[in-house]
Amino acid sequence: MPKLTDVPKRILIGRALRSDRLGETLLPKRIALPVFASDPLSSVAYAPGEVLLVLSIAGASAYHFSPWIALAVVVLMFTVVASYRQNVHAYPSGGGDYEVATTNLGPKAGLTVASALLVDYVLTVAVSISAGVENLGSAVPFVIENKVLCAIGIIVILTLMNLRGVRESGKLFAIPTYIFVTGVFIMILWGAYRGLVLGDTMHAPTAHFEIKAEESGLAGFALIFLLLRAFSSGCAALTGVEAISNGVPAFRKPKSRNAATTLAMMGTLAVTMFCGIIGLAMATDVKMAEFPAKDLLRDGVPVGEGYVQNPVISQVAAAVFGPDTFFFVLLAAATALVLFLAANTAYNGFPLLGSILAQDRYLPRQLHTRGDRLAFSNGIVLLAGAAILLVWLYGADSTKLIQLYIVGVFVSFTLSQTGMVRHWNRHLRTERDKAKRRHMIRSRAINTFGAFFTGLVLIVVLATKFTHGAWVALLGMVIFYGTMSAIRRHYDRVAEEIAAAEAPGPDSVRPSRVHTIVLVSKVHKPTLRALAFAKLTRSDRLEALSINVDTAETKQLREEWERRGINVPLKILDSPYREITRPVIEYVKGLRTENPRDVVSIFIPEYVVGRWYEQVLHNQSALRLKGRLLFTPGVMVTSVPYQLESSEVAKKRDRRRAEWSAPGSVRRGPVDTRPKKEPTGKS
Amino acid sequence: MPKLTDVPKRILIGRALRSDRLGETLLPKRIALPVFASDPLSSVAYAPGEVLLVLSIAGASAYHFSPWIALAVVVLMFTVVASYRQNVHAYPSGGGDYEVATTNLGPKAGLTVASALLVDYVLTVAVSISAGVENLGSAVPFVIENKVLCAIGIIVILTLMNLRGVRESGKLFAIPTYIFVTGVFIMILWGAYRGLVLGDTMHAPTAHFEIKAEESGLAGFALIFLLLRAFSSGCAALTGVEAISNGVPAFRKPKSRNAATTLAMMGTLAVTMFCGIIGLAMATDVKMAEFPAKDLLRDGVPVGEGYVQNPVISQVAAAVFGPDTFFFVLLAAATALVLFLAANTAYNGFPLLGSILAQDRYLPRQLHTRGDRLAFSNGIVLLAGAAILLVWLYGADSTKLIQLYIVGVFVSFTLSQTGMVRHWNRHLRTERDKAKRRHMIRSRAINTFGAFFTGLVLIVVLATKFTHGAWVALLGMVIFYGTMSAIRRHYDRVAEEIAAAEAPGPDSVRPSRVHTIVLVSKVHKPTLRALAFAKLTRSDRLEALSINVDTAETKQLREEWERRGINVPLKILDSPYREITRPVIEYVKGLRTENPRDVVSIFIPEYVVGRWYEQVLHNQSALRLKGRLLFTPGVMVTSVPYQLESSEVAKKRDRRRAEWSAPGSVRRGPVDTRPKKEPTGKS
Repeated sequence: MPKLTDVPKRILIGRALRSDRLGETLLPKRIALPVFASDPLSSVAYAPGEVLLVLSIAGASAYHFSPWIALAVVVLMFTVVASYRQNVHAYPSGGGDYEVATTNLGPKAGLTVASALLVDYVLTVAVSISAGVENLGSAVPFVIENKVLCAIGIIVILTLMNLRGVRESGKLFAIPTYIFVTGVFIMILWGAYRGLVLGDTMHAPTAHFEIKAEESGLAGFALIFLLLRAFSSGCAALTGVEAISNGVPAFRKPKSRNAATTLAMMGTLAVTMFCGIIGLAMATDVKMAEFPAKDLLRDGVPVGEGYVQNPVISQVAAAVFGPDTFFFVLLAAATALVLFLAANTAYNGFPLLGSILAQDRYLPRQLHTRGDRLAFSNGIVLLAGAAILLVWLYGADSTKLIQLYIVGVFVSFTLSQTGMVRHWNRHLRTERDKAKRRHMIRSRAINTFGAFFTGLVLIVVLATKFTHGAWVALLGMVIFYGTMSAIRRHYDRVAEEIAAAEAPGPDSVRPSRVHTIVLVSKVHKPTLRALAFAKLTRSDRLEALSINVDTAETKQLREEWERRGINVPLKILDSPYREITRPVIEYVKGLRTENPRDVVSIFIPEYVVGRWYEQVLHNQSALRLKGRLLFTPGVMVTSVPYQLESSEVAKKRDRRRAEWSAPGSVRRGPVDTRPKKEPTGKS
Repeated sequence: MPKLTDVPKRILIGRALRSDRLGETLLPKRIALPVFASDPLSSVAYAPGEVLLVLSIAGASAYHFSPWIALAVVVLMFTVVASYRQNVHAYPSGGGDYEVATTNLGPKAGLTVASALLVDYVLTVAVSISAGVENLGSAVPFVIENKVLCAIGIIVILTLMNLRGVRESGKLFAIPTYIFVTGVFIMILWGAYRGLVLGDTMHAPTAHFEIKAEESGLAGFALIFLLLRAFSSGCAALTGVEAISNGVPAFRKPKSRNAATTLAMMGTLAVTMFCGIIGLAMATDVKMAEFPAKDLLRDGVPVGEGYVQNPVISQVAAAVFGPDTFFFVLLAAATALVLFLAANTAYNGFPLLGSILAQDRYLPRQLHTRGDRLAFSNGIVLLAGAAILLVWLYGADSTKLIQLYIVGVFVSFTLSQTGMVRHWNRHLRTERDKAKRRHMIRSRAINTFGAFFTGLVLIVVLATKFTHGAWVALLGMVIFYGTMSAIRRHYDRVAEEIAAAEAPGPDSVRPSRVHTIVLVSKVHKPTLRALAFAKLTRSDRLEALSINVDTAETKQLREEWERRGINVPLKILDSPYREITRPVIEYVKGLRTENPRDVVSIFIPEYVVGRWYEQVLHNQSALRLKGRLLFTPGVMVTSVPYQLESSEVAKKRDRRRAEWSAPGSVRRGPVDTRPKKEPTGKS
């Protein structure tokens, strides 16, 4: 029965889907595009500005290099898109870069990619939210005045939404993304029309500013280094392109072809918007500086600490539509919204990758359950915590955060493309069909170029950004890598320890008899049930055991035992210190010493309650006793539950929780069919 | 084998005692006195000052009332000591005020006393530590400049010591307490000798100060009210007197008589020191004001915010021994140390009272285990947290904190003495022996006077201190009272719900057969052990169940099952979402629906590991499944442990922990023999 409060939610995000009906929702291309592209498309909101910002170090005159840098980004984008089109055809199962690298380059490469992607998800949140706040701030001054607070607030809201498991639908992504894309295109076209046809001169708010060059008269190697740094920053436009290769199963058939087409559409849109914004920025004389307070001059005087440097997209919009017009505000809002959606994709990607890693035993096994709420929550909280830390440390400054961002992406691009080259090599060794071979050779060429180019960019990024913050991202990767290999080593060690001998040989002492003990404190329903159940499992010896912590109670117990004529012998152990655990453990150990081949089976009546504070009031002694008993060899512990009335509360809560389905299912598509390459142990 | 690091500890606090050898350590009077008296004796370090402080409101001339107030405190002290001497004879079991009130006035009065005592323990810590820091600060300026920080630091150190379970010995208390008492007596005697015999005029550091009266020319009712307030503050000297009545079992025989004698000694010492210090303060012209910054004048000018008002005991010591002399510093250090010891007694008393309350089901049952480490830790942390909060809120100002202090003590004094009157009345109804009757009538007279006098003081305290902070203490009591009655109501409700029917009637559907299911993920040693144990407990039907979360693994499992010829049928359930819990629950529910009289017994192989992070890596699915299964009626869950090598770590840790004995055992004496008045349920 739907709750009344569900109605607005349903209107907003579509009809709630039970996870087992999810199999029927596959994405048409027009929905898949916004679902997967909010991350790469939104990056055009900050990438062009970053290019100008770095160039400004050499003074405003260096801005004339910006078209060349844009061209380099365009070439790179097409290379990457072309490369990933090969991926989606070769790996339609949606394994993504991690699978490609693991399969073709081995587990270490795979784990490196995974570490890079995990770091990347954290940065996607930090960068997108910070940029979103900056864009929103260009229309709403309050937001920019309380930048860090607003950014953290939005992360917290996103986190809570994802923890609650607000279900997403394609529409949720489609509307803002299409508004944003349309808005940017209208801006570009209207700007071009005004400039080229009407001959208007449009001025950005910073058009009359001057830039004081940090390093004037740069030439030779220094200039090239600066241009490479600007290019590295522009590469931020490429983040998120790889997402589609994880999401192939979510597409309608023919899945791979549709995914490849969507990828091409996304690339085209992204580069067009990127170039359009750079072009408009040139035309409207936008001025941006890395350190605006001292390097931006208004009437020859530095603008000072109070100055807020608005994002390039908002400055261009102000020039084209006029500041604070309806279109200006609409575009600022749409930009912010798309950036927040981009951040949200990391909330889906992070736990999803976590579950794949868990399947390969790099993370705790229980995470591998699809949509496991607890595992999902842990991932979400870890992601949000790391992102909040970064936002706080870097003052929600997208420019500073971007220095960290691109390393991870290009590590995973390069390794994935290298893996693809190996993939084709391997297939070419066995493939005999001429047409197919030709196709493969072509794909290999594309991937080889992709690997080479992205590898080059990775080196450029590392060289130009290392001291600016890329080391932080690398450190993060090393931490993830180290933790995950340690977990894997632990699982491997345990798997070895528990491996059963191949021949069913003589397993030391074979158990022969069962001695059953029912723990009793009073004669009440839970005890009677435990006794009844213990009798049903026919053991060789059955006795009831009670600890005398209170003489009066024990006397009463003994009397009632006899009065009711319970035909199980009652053994009483003294415990002057009112301990429960120690006497029981010692008694059990004694039994085992007398008869080493006996197995001792201990029945503990357990109260099942519904509320956490009731849990505190019950079973604590039983739980602790159980914990200790498990360390004693030759023992098994049976909990006989007695459901108190309040347990109904928990049942209802469980039912509600069972209906929860992990956010991100739209992107993941129906039931995961990723095949396992190697059988692995389980625990 | 003792660790090397144990050696200094052993030298410091005596040979470590295993708790079961504790029975042999009983306290001789010379050790019992410091063990129990550090709290009441240490209060002479602040109580006299508080009297002067309140009197100063009417100006320095009001100081001439101080001997009369001291006299009233002395009379009250003798009354209380005389009353409690009756208690220790009548209740040698060490139940204390809570037991006396519960037995004679009913559970509500008992719970009120318990709440008052719990609040009191918190305040003992807050007040003693603050006063200790002030005394230490009179010799070490750094301490007083960072008062709150130092006070909280010392609370944290005490807390850690108590959490670690540093064992106490009588000597630990004896040495500082005797140094303190001797020091104070030397001071009083030397002061008297100098003043009366040598005719020296001694000047306290504040002797030449003047006091600006807050209210000058007080008379009539206003004056009486002020004197009553001063008396209330002086009553702080009585806190902790009741402690001996809890500790009678710790005394050597004849227990009650020795306890009574110790009580008398303690009372005599306390009042002598109290009066001596007041007398010396008069003789050396000590000036103290409630608001020294504005009401203390030096050469006619207020001393201002920077002025630190040293405790009266330190001012007197400065006058008698000279400031910063060896004796002055020694006395300051001994005073501080005794005050910290007094705070430490609350760390013992709080969990001890908690365990008694748990026995009566006012607190979670597991707390009733004597020396249960976890329960003890919870109590300690709660106590420390509340004390730190108070110290922080009140700026570690002992004068402000004392306003809250005395309410709890006098609530428990009054109720306990009233209970004693009822106790004698009841006994007089049946007692026929003339001598005994005479004795009882005498005791009743003492207790009646005690009840009347302490009740009167309680009213005075409430009237004079309510707005000054006593309401905070009352609020604390109400919170404790409310929480504890709610817990008791919960236990009573559950006890009713689970009470077994008197006649062994037809218990709805009687279970008839057992269907055993062994959960299997792979064929390894833990699984094989679970299968072996399951076979031993002969059930009507036995099958192995595996969830197909990974097709390759499942295939491998099925093959290995056949290759090994395991003669248990293997059932495989599909789980497209890689869930474990849901398919199992649904399968079990299905079985129950088919055969409602079957009991389903589920065997889960459980890995036993030694470290917490390993626990995170294993058993999580099993634990969650178990949690859900317990909500299903007609199910029992058996854990078959498999001890991994790392479990040895935990075994060693457990062994170390088992040797832990709760601090406070010196005061509690050997095994608690407190008889239970009414049999109670247990859970």
